Amino acid sequence: MRIIAIDPGTKRTGYSVFEVNNSSSRLAECGTVFVRGKDLPAKLLAVHRGVERLFRRLKPRQVVIERPFAGKNVRDAMTLNSARAVCMLAAAVIHARVFEYAPSQVKKAVTGDGNATKDKVNLYVSATLGLRQAPEPDTADAIALAICHLNRL
Amino acid sequence: MRIIAIDPGTKRTGYSVFEVNNSSSRLAECGTVFVRGKDLPAKLLAVHRGVERLFRRLKPRQVVIERPFAGKNVRDAMTLNSARAVCMLAAAVIHARVFEYAPSQVKKAVTGDGNATKDKVNLYVSATLGLRQAPEPDTADAIALAICHLNRL
Repeated sequence: MRIIAIDPGTKRTGYSVFEVNNSSSRLAECGTVFVRGKDLPAKLLAVHRGVERLFRRLKPRQVVIERPFAGKNVRDAMTLNSARAVCMLAAAVIHARVFEYAPSQVKKAVTGDGNATKDKVNLYVSATLGLRQAPEPDTADAIALAICHLNRL
Repeated sequence: MRIIAIDPGTKRTGYSVFEVNNSSSRLAECGTVFVRGKDLPAKLLAVHRGVERLFRRLKPRQVVIERPFAGKNVRDAMTLNSARAVCMLAAAVIHARVFEYAPSQVKKAVTGDGNATKDKVNLYVSATLGLRQAPEPDTADAIALAICHLNRL
């Protein structure tokens, strides 16, 4: 079964692709969709097109999306939530099942600490998967998200 | 020029279509997209397909969207914001210009009172346009939104 995890953002949207079978899981691909656009509608279109292309090519059965942190700034949370919505839409189009986790759940699953810094998450992701090179931060977040989901499966 | 105003929702999405020229504007069509879906991704897909169909048929130059009220319940505001995001996406696909107004701006533009009830807004909408029958509430909200935008133009 193929799983794609998405860390949605209107500047960069990270993704990771895992192949899962009964006994093991393997990181098959990961990366970042760089988003350009003069305003929110254009940015949402860029996020949607990037993710849609990925889904069409890889046809995941499950899509995991990071739930935006509704903390400090309402405006930023709403913008992130919009990026999440267009990723969810792309998942619905291909009939993938959608799973969501909060950032604190992801951090806890990967490092054991729900308040871990981005650097710590990145370090644990690299160590867990034995990556020779640290992934780009948004990519690392998408890998961490997939690890959180795989732990739950 | 054709303008479509959208009141996004994951149960009902109201819309109104106005034809605008230099001297006047005219309500050409209005209605409600009834949304069905077992979960948020399915609902967002239904909203997007309904709005996309409308935009493809009517090719508006401008799309006006109600900005969700970020008031009391964060969860509800996030859900409404997701519906707004997929409407925005549909507008970006057809290169329409997107305008947004907060509910209080719309109420003030139509009734003079930023805290007007839904019933009062509906009454003023019917009176302003000389409608023989009161529109369905979500449709009335979409008409009110268009009136607010037309006042600003």
